[in-house]
Amino acid sequence: MVKMVTETYIPRNRLFVLDDLSAGQAIELSAPQAHYLRNVLRFQDGEIVALFNGRDGEWAAQYLSQGKKTALAQVQQLLRPQNNIPDIWLVFALLKSDPMDFIAQKATELGVAALLPARTERTVVGRINIERMRNHVQEAAQQCERLEVPMVRECASLDEILANWDGSRILLYGDETGAGQSLCGLFPQRPEKLAVLIGPEGGFSARELDRLRTLPYALGINLGPRILRAETAALAALTATQLFWGDWEKVRGA
Amino acid sequence: MVKMVTETYIPRNRLFVLDDLSAGQAIELSAPQAHYLRNVLRFQDGEIVALFNGRDGEWAAQYLSQGKKTALAQVQQLLRPQNNIPDIWLVFALLKSDPMDFIAQKATELGVAALLPARTERTVVGRINIERMRNHVQEAAQQCERLEVPMVRECASLDEILANWDGSRILLYGDETGAGQSLCGLFPQRPEKLAVLIGPEGGFSARELDRLRTLPYALGINLGPRILRAETAALAALTATQLFWGDWEKVRGA
Repeated sequence: MVKMVTETYIPRNRLFVLDDLSAGQAIELSAPQAHYLRNVLRFQDGEIVALFNGRDGEWAAQYLSQGKKTALAQVQQLLRPQNNIPDIWLVFALLKSDPMDFIAQKATELGVAALLPARTERTVVGRINIERMRNHVQEAAQQCERLEVPMVRECASLDEILANWDGSRILLYGDETGAGQSLCGLFPQRPEKLAVLIGPEGGFSARELDRLRTLPYALGINLGPRILRAETAALAALTATQLFWGDWEKVRGA
Repeated sequence: MVKMVTETYIPRNRLFVLDDLSAGQAIELSAPQAHYLRNVLRFQDGEIVALFNGRDGEWAAQYLSQGKKTALAQVQQLLRPQNNIPDIWLVFALLKSDPMDFIAQKATELGVAALLPARTERTVVGRINIERMRNHVQEAAQQCERLEVPMVRECASLDEILANWDGSRILLYGDETGAGQSLCGLFPQRPEKLAVLIGPEGGFSARELDRLRTLPYALGINLGPRILRAETAALAALTATQLFWGDWEKVRGA
């Protein structure tokens, strides 16, 4: 039984693939994806799944099982063209596993373009499992109907990140000292490239704050009158950034 | 050894109490609070803890052990006067335990005044542990330096909540149909009383949306072009509400 793809048909299941997508192509699904469709969702041959790769938009594809562990997806028709998302990054100091998973999921839902884990002077957590974060980010992108998966950079020290910074990308850092600027009306024009930087639970060191204050592309921002946990601050700052300079005002599907 | 309270001294430890607070009073701490100070933080007699009750501001108090399980706090001096917080409520459809804990903690950090758990037609989760939520909210309030603990109402159906609604409180509901209004510039004047309403994972039913659309105090809002999980939507909407009509612009300590 083959489900017809109509203009109003929106598949509930979306998978991210690396291959190019165009009508008529047969994509070999990864083993976990084939397992997910066959054993979790109980897909039958001919059922429709949506595919996206971050470049070619979202496509309807027919599921076709191939033996016990593999499956193909036969690409049929374009559901949504690729669109440009706001170029907003999140640089965040390493946190414990739970809040870091939280950041991966929520920042993806909030439309972040890239995640940059950083070690700062007061960072307590020593390491990050980048593969785990990439998996969380991909899963979240599939679920929240994004057409691209945010980039997750390898972890680096804040010093290294700043040393290699593209000065045309404005860096908004959460300033806990009360000296941060108000977000409302901060930029008369929408900046092309933005990043939000959130420090660790203990805040930035005096040296880090001094350095940030000398950078021509960095601006301290006020994140409100309450003390926010690092992951809450990241989420609130991303929300505000999308609201003022991102794509929040865009209606879904438009 | 008695630590002196100076104007710049900010105690790292804050406890919520029910008693009135004024200079010279001796407050009997609850058994868990006494245990926390004595056994977790290793408090010695004379050390300073901050107390708040949501009415009288924040006070420095001296810890004094009393036997093995009880302790007194001798109220000394006012650290911060009580301030009024924005009257912003969150009405949310019941979720599973983890996202509900998340809402309790993050909504408190973001300065919500009251949390109202609701059953909607598509709510899958049947029950909520109100005591657990109240504990989470109190803990978060202690940590984020709020001077009050958000009210947590008993769970009710959305119909009941709307039937008893004070029509002077504007109700902003997340409208997933794309018909929601833009938040920027929604109100020319800051509304006195606001609430945000977030539906369950499956969204509001057609009947609920129809009802919401007829209510003079209710407004559907646009929460951006991506599909947000219910708990992310709640936090993003609260962030935006604080940013536009709340106290976000207030600097900490001011």
